[in-house]
Amino acid sequence: MPANMISKILEKADLPLDVTAPHVVKTEAARTSVLRNPNMEKLQKGYLFPEISMKHEAHLKKYPDAKVISLGIGDTTEPIPRVITSAMAEYTLALSTQEGYQGYGPEQGQMNLRKVIAEKVYPNMGIKESEVFISDGAQCDIARLQMLFGPNVTIAVQDPTFPGYVDNGVIVGQTGEADEAGRYAGISYMRCAPENHFFPDLSRVPRTDVIFFCSPNNPTGHAASAAQLRELVDFARRNGSIIVFDAAYAWYVSEDDEEEGGGGGNNSKPRSIYEVPGAREVAIEICSFSKFAGFTGVRLGWAVVPGELRYADGSPVARDFDRIVCTCFNGASSVAQAGGLACLATEEGRAAVRRVVAVYKENARVLVDTFASLGKEVYGGADSPYVWVRFPGRRSWDVFAEILEKTHVITVPGSGFGPGGEGFVRVSAFNSRDRVLEAAARLRKYLA
Amino acid sequence: MPANMISKILEKADLPLDVTAPHVVKTEAARTSVLRNPNMEKLQKGYLFPEISMKHEAHLKKYPDAKVISLGIGDTTEPIPRVITSAMAEYTLALSTQEGYQGYGPEQGQMNLRKVIAEKVYPNMGIKESEVFISDGAQCDIARLQMLFGPNVTIAVQDPTFPGYVDNGVIVGQTGEADEAGRYAGISYMRCAPENHFFPDLSRVPRTDVIFFCSPNNPTGHAASAAQLRELVDFARRNGSIIVFDAAYAWYVSEDDEEEGGGGGNNSKPRSIYEVPGAREVAIEICSFSKFAGFTGVRLGWAVVPGELRYADGSPVARDFDRIVCTCFNGASSVAQAGGLACLATEEGRAAVRRVVAVYKENARVLVDTFASLGKEVYGGADSPYVWVRFPGRRSWDVFAEILEKTHVITVPGSGFGPGGEGFVRVSAFNSRDRVLEAAARLRKYLA
Repeated sequence: MPANMISKILEKADLPLDVTAPHVVKTEAARTSVLRNPNMEKLQKGYLFPEISMKHEAHLKKYPDAKVISLGIGDTTEPIPRVITSAMAEYTLALSTQEGYQGYGPEQGQMNLRKVIAEKVYPNMGIKESEVFISDGAQCDIARLQMLFGPNVTIAVQDPTFPGYVDNGVIVGQTGEADEAGRYAGISYMRCAPENHFFPDLSRVPRTDVIFFCSPNNPTGHAASAAQLRELVDFARRNGSIIVFDAAYAWYVSEDDEEEGGGGGNNSKPRSIYEVPGAREVAIEICSFSKFAGFTGVRLGWAVVPGELRYADGSPVARDFDRIVCTCFNGASSVAQAGGLACLATEEGRAAVRRVVAVYKENARVLVDTFASLGKEVYGGADSPYVWVRFPGRRSWDVFAEILEKTHVITVPGSGFGPGGEGFVRVSAFNSRDRVLEAAARLRKYLA
Repeated sequence: MPANMISKILEKADLPLDVTAPHVVKTEAARTSVLRNPNMEKLQKGYLFPEISMKHEAHLKKYPDAKVISLGIGDTTEPIPRVITSAMAEYTLALSTQEGYQGYGPEQGQMNLRKVIAEKVYPNMGIKESEVFISDGAQCDIARLQMLFGPNVTIAVQDPTFPGYVDNGVIVGQTGEADEAGRYAGISYMRCAPENHFFPDLSRVPRTDVIFFCSPNNPTGHAASAAQLRELVDFARRNGSIIVFDAAYAWYVSEDDEEEGGGGGNNSKPRSIYEVPGAREVAIEICSFSKFAGFTGVRLGWAVVPGELRYADGSPVARDFDRIVCTCFNGASSVAQAGGLACLATEEGRAAVRRVVAVYKENARVLVDTFASLGKEVYGGADSPYVWVRFPGRRSWDVFAEILEKTHVITVPGSGFGPGGEGFVRVSAFNSRDRVLEAAARLRKYLA
């Protein structure tokens, strides 16, 4: 909903100003003698999305009547299937009864939900319910995992990358300062581009303790092949590294791609790192109901930490993660968990969410076709809600501005995801079919 | 619900064993070469509540027919008023419609909820909605605040204390190792006992960057007086320290206590630190819907970070906290937020939650009377759901065991909250009236 989106965006953009401005200007404010956390000082100032919001606002001032279509922020727009909200509403109303009231749940999540995730999301992968930790979303799990690892580990990320891995690493003290290009000292950036099939040349990647790897990728939309993931797991095993595999978009992997070759063929696209032999000893997986069931606002996700994953001293990573979950978190909302159960426990629920995913996937197909018909290099979209479009020789922000100016369509400049995204824009399939078709028509008309 | 409680407790107690045991025994597990976070190693092994759970289990094995009553963990038991769950159910069902669907909300929370908190919880205290950050509960805010402050700050806590402040401080690296008594090097422990009216002698407390202070206190049940809080704020202002004021039990302060002397009398009990002049420049407040509206499972709370609160370099603490909230968190569940709004926005909602609080307060009165009639020194209970009972010359765990053995009532050993709790047990008023009356009858009969 554009009104909702805009008010949200304005609110975000306003906040930091609102908090700081009045007091700085008017008086010499009282100060504590507490030193600012030096890791917070290292964080780079601009966030990507507030910057986009400001450009959006400026555009609306210039064109007050423009019907702006946002294919920017990856926020879901389709209603949640009734079978899921009914279950949540029923659970909620029961909280008003003696029989149905429940207080604290286990910090690790309701066992029935953990069990259904182990069984339905990881069939035949040997994942036990006790290895599934329910959370309030993948972003929060990234923060908790970085707290778990602490300041002394070294990390690697894809470039371009979702910024959460890096920013949380900076906050816990894993890095030095950022350079001009926005790369933090101490982080290994693994270039993922069309030239290397969006998979790094691992022979040139230094060993790090932790490797964050997102597939299907945000922002490039590339789903790694089984061969690529086997290479990644082998690399981690050789180096004694831990992979944090972000599978938030796993549901977008096409059935054909996934099952081709029985899930094991080189070109098949695994939905889980645990489809790869040997992954249990080296990989954590995080996942989310956000992009799958439209739970971006409801907040629900999970992390899998296999029992076999061990630190150098032989102690299980899961035991420390359990401690983090119990100390820094108190469990996901029980209402959200009731919704998660409704998504996965019955064929009706699973079919309903598959239909929602299909809507966005068809949107992505429309967008891929649109840019292809304009002669652009287009990536992603087949196994992902994100379409990654190259504009050779141009700067991402310039392309973003041109598309906005000519078509009133908001995209995301690829350089916002790191230097490796320069020259690209990310186009999101999260919007209604009507708006996507309208955006596609404008793009074809004005970008030709 | 005992069945629910027990299964929850069993589940918690089982987990760490389940995760570790099979693999250690069977094979030499593969190991990564990642070093365990040294801060995680510092954390002391036993958690209080799992330890209690194990004793609970053992008791059930010994007395399979015992009707155990838990006055242990501070978990709410009263149903949530219908006016609140109806609003949540309505919001949830609307998520299945085009008009009602909402995706990501602002990370800082819905502005209408932030506004109603500023107005209804902080009337005439000058709190702006932009200073209220909605969260998934006070425990999570403690973790986020400790991430914000980082490893270099020094902290002070009350002794006894809720363990969250300390444990999160250990995780982010603020401390050295723990000594035999469980005190971490680098933390200032401020003794709060009947002898000092549960308020530390600040002339003997060293300056720290951050002071965690909980009132009404968990576990002692003591609500600090206005005079005490003025002293605390003055101390922080003189030292340039930041107070983190945990007001999770503010709703239990009796109206009479709060309003006596127009809220400003020395013996009045402020519900908020912002009732104290000068607090805005030195204090953050955290609060929760958990113990107020029975949202322990629903998960909703907030933090207030005033614009005037500044680091030594003059930069606003709120700006960095905003960055933490946006980076490590993605907002509280929108469904929970709809419930929070229903608690506070109308007189009907506010009256409904006051009735629930009144149930627990009457329970607390029953428990205070019971222990008083047994000739015990009893504290708390008047402005708090917790009753703090002294057993001079005895060890807390022995008293816990004796009460369990004789009455089948679960309490919490005071020493679990720090060395300053030795010789006390905490008794929680969170249970049904019937069970509290039954527990009181057993205590009078067998503990006389």
